[in-house]
Amino acid sequence: MSELFLRTLRDDPADAEVPSHKLLIRAGYVRPVGPGLYSWLPLGLKVLRKIENIVRTEMNAIGGQEILFPALLPRAPYETTNRWTEYGDTLFRLQDRRGNDYLLGPTHEEMFTLTVKGEYSSYKDFPLRLYQIQNKYRDEARPRAGILRGREFLMKDSYSFDVDDDGLKKAYDAHREAYRRIFDTLKVRYVIVSAVSGAMGGSASEEFLAESEVGEDTYVRCPQSGYAANVEAVVTTAPDPIPLDGLPEAVVHDTPDTPTIATLVDWANSANLPSFDGRTVTAADTLKNVMLKVREPGGEWELLAIGVPGDREVDDKRLGAALEPAEYALLDDADFAKHLFLVKGYIGPKALLANGVRYLVDPRIVDGTRWITGADEKNKHVVDLVAGRDFTPDGTIEAAEVREGDLSPDGAGPLVAARGIEIGHVFQLGRKYADAFGADVLGENGKPVRLTMGSYGIGVSRLVAVIAEQQHDELGLRWPSSVSPFDVHVVIANKDADARTGATELAAALDLAGADVLLDDRTSSPGVKFKDAELLGVPWIVVVGRGWADGVVELRDRFSGEKREIPVEGAAEQIRAAITG
Amino acid sequence: MSELFLRTLRDDPADAEVPSHKLLIRAGYVRPVGPGLYSWLPLGLKVLRKIENIVRTEMNAIGGQEILFPALLPRAPYETTNRWTEYGDTLFRLQDRRGNDYLLGPTHEEMFTLTVKGEYSSYKDFPLRLYQIQNKYRDEARPRAGILRGREFLMKDSYSFDVDDDGLKKAYDAHREAYRRIFDTLKVRYVIVSAVSGAMGGSASEEFLAESEVGEDTYVRCPQSGYAANVEAVVTTAPDPIPLDGLPEAVVHDTPDTPTIATLVDWANSANLPSFDGRTVTAADTLKNVMLKVREPGGEWELLAIGVPGDREVDDKRLGAALEPAEYALLDDADFAKHLFLVKGYIGPKALLANGVRYLVDPRIVDGTRWITGADEKNKHVVDLVAGRDFTPDGTIEAAEVREGDLSPDGAGPLVAARGIEIGHVFQLGRKYADAFGADVLGENGKPVRLTMGSYGIGVSRLVAVIAEQQHDELGLRWPSSVSPFDVHVVIANKDADARTGATELAAALDLAGADVLLDDRTSSPGVKFKDAELLGVPWIVVVGRGWADGVVELRDRFSGEKREIPVEGAAEQIRAAITG
Repeated sequence: MSELFLRTLRDDPADAEVPSHKLLIRAGYVRPVGPGLYSWLPLGLKVLRKIENIVRTEMNAIGGQEILFPALLPRAPYETTNRWTEYGDTLFRLQDRRGNDYLLGPTHEEMFTLTVKGEYSSYKDFPLRLYQIQNKYRDEARPRAGILRGREFLMKDSYSFDVDDDGLKKAYDAHREAYRRIFDTLKVRYVIVSAVSGAMGGSASEEFLAESEVGEDTYVRCPQSGYAANVEAVVTTAPDPIPLDGLPEAVVHDTPDTPTIATLVDWANSANLPSFDGRTVTAADTLKNVMLKVREPGGEWELLAIGVPGDREVDDKRLGAALEPAEYALLDDADFAKHLFLVKGYIGPKALLANGVRYLVDPRIVDGTRWITGADEKNKHVVDLVAGRDFTPDGTIEAAEVREGDLSPDGAGPLVAARGIEIGHVFQLGRKYADAFGADVLGENGKPVRLTMGSYGIGVSRLVAVIAEQQHDELGLRWPSSVSPFDVHVVIANKDADARTGATELAAALDLAGADVLLDDRTSSPGVKFKDAELLGVPWIVVVGRGWADGVVELRDRFSGEKREIPVEGAAEQIRAAITG
Repeated sequence: MSELFLRTLRDDPADAEVPSHKLLIRAGYVRPVGPGLYSWLPLGLKVLRKIENIVRTEMNAIGGQEILFPALLPRAPYETTNRWTEYGDTLFRLQDRRGNDYLLGPTHEEMFTLTVKGEYSSYKDFPLRLYQIQNKYRDEARPRAGILRGREFLMKDSYSFDVDDDGLKKAYDAHREAYRRIFDTLKVRYVIVSAVSGAMGGSASEEFLAESEVGEDTYVRCPQSGYAANVEAVVTTAPDPIPLDGLPEAVVHDTPDTPTIATLVDWANSANLPSFDGRTVTAADTLKNVMLKVREPGGEWELLAIGVPGDREVDDKRLGAALEPAEYALLDDADFAKHLFLVKGYIGPKALLANGVRYLVDPRIVDGTRWITGADEKNKHVVDLVAGRDFTPDGTIEAAEVREGDLSPDGAGPLVAARGIEIGHVFQLGRKYADAFGADVLGENGKPVRLTMGSYGIGVSRLVAVIAEQQHDELGLRWPSSVSPFDVHVVIANKDADARTGATELAAALDLAGADVLLDDRTSSPGVKFKDAELLGVPWIVVVGRGWADGVVELRDRFSGEKREIPVEGAAEQIRAAITG
């Protein structure tokens, strides 16, 4: 440690929010270079490389072949798939000295598809699994939490190529299993959740989320069945339709000054509505219509109304996933001014449908359900407007928020919510990219067959932070042996020259026995050294201290905190045995 | 090979100029993605990683500590050193979504200096040697020759930090020796040449050039002494001054229509000049004055005249190195129009000095040498203008071309010219970057001491091409064992099921014995397989062919072409012994 390029910091960095960020900086693993940009100092780089190698080993084990693309890529292939535009501000774009457009690769589907198309031509060449471990670039709006969400980050991305759906299924399953082995080796606590596709397009898709309170991804799970899904992927359980016969008539009421759900509910309860039979009216009895404008890629802006029960907000992530790849925005005052039939605060299905506005509703709004909703005139609402009788929406949309207590889609029980960090993604892309580039090969029957693809990613540099986040304690980092920068940390805590020599010899003996040893040979006080050892997080700490005179050293387990004395005689062998478990 | 992601090509790619480029593409090691941008397919990536690991091992052996910076870097540090501007069009610049300026790192002196300044504060922390192995980006005007000069390329760059010159010297020597070991391990034929600094600024500097006819760097060497230098670094041997006493008077002559050196020499020989005593006048007797304008960074354009013997051209590389970091350009007609004392084709020292133009001359123009040169009037020249008597230049400049046959600076004999490819550079930067960032630490005497730095680079990806270039033959690539993608290439050249099984078992046995085996199990003809084996360049080829029935296989040495028969019984051990030979 007297030579290691390392300085630990006593205080948390000012701008660090999450524990892993604070600790990785305090322990000298990484340093900020700019927003979302970090340098890896020696200890951090060692952890990164260990994770990278664990990932590589498992990819090779399922027949993955490693290749490597540039990070700097020409525009044309991303133009073909429209991602040059679709990525928006997240894409780093630049020009070369001739004014040609380039980008820094955010992900490499295009390049892999083109490369396979260029090399292979027959069904006999498949299945094929390729991967790379490479820097990716995304200009995040809010790079946060250190290396949890950087703008330059290391990712393993693999792609499978098959001539039929069965092959794709096998590749998907193989990756899914490999990912489980990887995260198990890394001792990451994770869940696998159903996911929707983000900007990728395609079919089956699951995310591996590391359980973490600081995660940006919210997911829900059902403890009864083990079901887990991203909120974007949760399918709402629709109630059974209700027969229309005998339902009360829809009646328009004067509802002065009730532009919000809360004011409307207050009015309804004070109005003592006969059809409610004395039951208290809640926000769930109201139908809220949210006005958007939507634009398909290359298309024009169009109005879209979304109807949800008044007790639920529209969830932006679910809405985005449901509308993808279309852009959308809430209507502003200018938009309202253009469409006078939209009476803000009093919008109802009637005016929407009469004026040809596309109208999608939450799946809970089934035929026979009755609603208090806008009557399309200021200060007027309609009570007992019945779906399937008084209005028929254009379809349903999964846009309403998912809440704890909602029924799991499998019906097994209520959902509970949790937060996670995406560490892996497996995704059946299908033929999206093969279609874009016309990636056909000769089939068994002599006719061209279009390739089908899967895409599989692991955030390698993010995992450094995830492990730090999940494993740390109040004293500092704690690394599982598989990724720790060193196997054992020997602390000289005795100023005696004899103890110092003994510690150095012990470190050398451990090294000889195949352990990677960090020796704290600095002249600092034992207290400083213990604090640093706890902060750095090597899983086993050997203290050569006061016991030296009595012929013992102390072995500390950084995870359990357990300490035990070991005789100096044969210490290397005994420590080696302990740390290899 | 039936599963390896590899397709060899029969024909040379259309745009490939040099053998390594052609072969690396034909053999499926790399593929072009854009100008100067390549993807690494499985075989190429294996070679690249092997070279990278050899470099890493030697860097660790001299106490280098590996760290890693982002490739995407903020502008500010490069603004501080002025390299944001100085790099010109070679720098890839971009902006993020907030409009902040970034660059893709062409080299990382700034980042290393800032990082060390941030972590260390005392002389006790030094010496320090840091390195990274990382992608660099340079927008070359003419990316050429495949991965010999790419725009994204892998480089190992190290930096040494010391508190005194002696420390810097030691770090420099340690890197120089490590580089020798690396290039020796890689079996690269190279020379170490004195170099000037390029855009780096500093003092001692040497380049490692791989000997190659396709190299872009010209260097000269003296076979008698072993002296070698980049042409930019050659110091001209100045003759001894000549006493001025008794030299002929300068005389102005009418020299109609002699604006070029050739026409002037013709005139001089026909004029039968008395002071030449019947000796033939040559271009070397004339003094040519080349007019430039020069601008120091942040300064104004100023005139500069360079006087060289008329038999030599001004060498652009030498001129650039001599004037660095100033910009320069030849005068155009508009410039001449502004300075009427400059009579194009007849410019002489007199008008230059009388009008205050800075005048630098070739070191051969010592006191007492006499010259035929312009008389600053159209169709007039002066003969026997004597340096040190009739004109006194402002100084000398190393700008005239270096030619084969010129005397070596060490006086040992004539220089010969050769071409090379830069594969390494060791460079005593000194305090340039420490000055720029105020990188001081507390000295032994309690006073601040400024750090002194060295910078040391190796072109890791370029070395793949360099080895291919130096080692290939007319049949294909040939890899030294240290970097070959496989240790041995087993070719099944016998359709017999028994031979096929035997070959597969032999490959498995070799694998078990620790060799990395490529098994050609394809159904192609033996001829196709042999051609591919020669093209791919694995150093040892085992052919399981007609001899199988007689209980023998053939072992071929790809370098010597030698073949020998090996009994099937115990073949794995014998082959293993031969290839580790």
